[in-house]
Amino acid sequence: MDVDEFRKRGKEMVDYIADYLGNIEQRQVYPDVQPGYLRSLIPEEAPEEPDMYEDVVRDIERVIMPGVTHWHSPYFFAYFPTGNSYPAMLADMLSGAIGCIGFSWAHSSVERAGLIGGVTMRKIPTDDKFALRGETFRKVLEEDKRAGLIPFYLCATLGTTPSCAFDNIIELGPICTSESVWMHVDAAYAGSAFICPEFRPLLNGVEFADSFNFNPHKWLLVNFDCSAMWVKNRSDIIGHWQIPLGRRFRSLKMWFVFRMYGLKGLQAYIRKHVALAKEFEGLVLADGRFEISADVILGLVCFRLKGSNDLNETLLKRINSARRIHLVPCQLEGKFVLRFAICARTIESRHVQEAWAHIVQVASEL
Amino acid sequence: MDVDEFRKRGKEMVDYIADYLGNIEQRQVYPDVQPGYLRSLIPEEAPEEPDMYEDVVRDIERVIMPGVTHWHSPYFFAYFPTGNSYPAMLADMLSGAIGCIGFSWAHSSVERAGLIGGVTMRKIPTDDKFALRGETFRKVLEEDKRAGLIPFYLCATLGTTPSCAFDNIIELGPICTSESVWMHVDAAYAGSAFICPEFRPLLNGVEFADSFNFNPHKWLLVNFDCSAMWVKNRSDIIGHWQIPLGRRFRSLKMWFVFRMYGLKGLQAYIRKHVALAKEFEGLVLADGRFEISADVILGLVCFRLKGSNDLNETLLKRINSARRIHLVPCQLEGKFVLRFAICARTIESRHVQEAWAHIVQVASEL
Repeated sequence: MDVDEFRKRGKEMVDYIADYLGNIEQRQVYPDVQPGYLRSLIPEEAPEEPDMYEDVVRDIERVIMPGVTHWHSPYFFAYFPTGNSYPAMLADMLSGAIGCIGFSWAHSSVERAGLIGGVTMRKIPTDDKFALRGETFRKVLEEDKRAGLIPFYLCATLGTTPSCAFDNIIELGPICTSESVWMHVDAAYAGSAFICPEFRPLLNGVEFADSFNFNPHKWLLVNFDCSAMWVKNRSDIIGHWQIPLGRRFRSLKMWFVFRMYGLKGLQAYIRKHVALAKEFEGLVLADGRFEISADVILGLVCFRLKGSNDLNETLLKRINSARRIHLVPCQLEGKFVLRFAICARTIESRHVQEAWAHIVQVASEL
Repeated sequence: MDVDEFRKRGKEMVDYIADYLGNIEQRQVYPDVQPGYLRSLIPEEAPEEPDMYEDVVRDIERVIMPGVTHWHSPYFFAYFPTGNSYPAMLADMLSGAIGCIGFSWAHSSVERAGLIGGVTMRKIPTDDKFALRGETFRKVLEEDKRAGLIPFYLCATLGTTPSCAFDNIIELGPICTSESVWMHVDAAYAGSAFICPEFRPLLNGVEFADSFNFNPHKWLLVNFDCSAMWVKNRSDIIGHWQIPLGRRFRSLKMWFVFRMYGLKGLQAYIRKHVALAKEFEGLVLADGRFEISADVILGLVCFRLKGSNDLNETLLKRINSARRIHLVPCQLEGKFVLRFAICARTIESRHVQEAWAHIVQVASEL
């Protein structure tokens, strides 16, 4: 769907919403379908090829609405109200488009969860590829047990934030199993890439995971926010862990995206980003003043000027002050490193080339 | 804003979004304003009277955009991507309109937080108005201390879910202060009502609260989700407590709502709901077969047939099976009670009258 079709479809959706809310009291307030009614109405898998938008819209009434409790019907007197007004919906549309999210770089969610739960957290050293390996894990596990601690949870990461490194879960998994340690796999960003067969080997060992999550809102063309989590044993988690009581209808946007891109469209999107990262890596490698600081596996390139941390800090500062592009740094083995992440849906080779030309120019002026 | 104006404004917003995303690369990717730049651009308080929609839209470029980091610009290479696609935005619009939220009735968020934090929680008995009183609180506090426990947190509620009761925070507050117990005030639903001066007395004692929250997404015409929290001492909480790392731009929808309704419009909205609840209470009281089970203070009426719990369970079951209206029950002092909550933005007296006529008819057939 291009921008011109969005103009057309968006206006149709505004009319659909106006009709829905304008005539809501003619709908039966509470559905009479049974849980699971949806299963027979939709295919088991996402489509390979994109669907027609007309079919998606037609399915709103066929598939979705029969299961909806119409909270905004004037015949709904249950619970307490949920807000809904035209100005709020207009602002919410804009909020989705800006997609500008607050972001806290300081604490990871795991550290926060540890703080809240009053649990001692241990960071485990990684190998020269910034990956956690089985041997190291076993060593600290034994150390902690000797110190009287009870290790019970490992958060392994596929696609770390600083360098997009992949912990070796095929080594970690069996240790977790034999030591009764819950292995959670956090694939917040990289998880989307596993729809491409060529990236699936990075997922080897996931069969040992007790839980796994990724964020379709990061790299799967789904608006913020949308986080998907699997648990091996449902009863471990259902009804216990999630703090918020209410939930937005987030599956709706995944459904639209799956249908309008199709599996092939989503794969093409991931591959395009990876190819652009590789293109940028090639540019960096071709300039002898620069070095690559971590393997480029998905859409992130970690690079730096050969030389001191101060030099690289100055480089980043000048790049960001110029405000033509925006980058953030990371620390890798004590080195100050620049991160170049392929982010935008609309990014093309020319943007990468321009960005690199700009970086080179700023570097030349140092 | 009525539905016809929404059609017009919604289509304009679709065009605004299409223009924004279509031309995003011409915007400076990272803002050069300082934190706090917004303060001088907006008034200190919400307007009394509604603003013009044209002024709100004009202020998007004047007030909002200068502070935005354009995450969807192809010149943004920081962090990891956030998703954004036209189909996802269309679905998100629909999701906001349906406002259909999953809802778990079983555990309250406080119970869940207790489970996660591994903290012992104690439920404290309430008085005949279902309100927690100082004397009872002091008694259980002393009991717990004698048992070697360390009471450190009280969650008081203004507007409880079962009956919209109000804990007596003016009695509870001084005890919390002298015993170094953190007093949190949960006013999830009722909090919105405090924009009306006549309901402010219910808030007496809030000066003792260490933290206070309410959900504008419940009763302040703001789409789900949006929760506002105050803490007396910022340093107690900033950077520690919130688990999610990213946030939607939720303040945008509050801003639209405040401006398009004005304080007077919002007050009128709350008062209309309260008046409709009183109207329903009057209908119940006029029928000798029914009784009111709790004081009607805001938009909730708790009522039942005089008689057994079984009778009332059957009544509720038949009402909900007919699917003309939807209600949920609660337990009050061992009694099975029906809750009639005024919910919809568009509810009018005729809906309340119709609902009551329907309830009476079902009751007559028992």
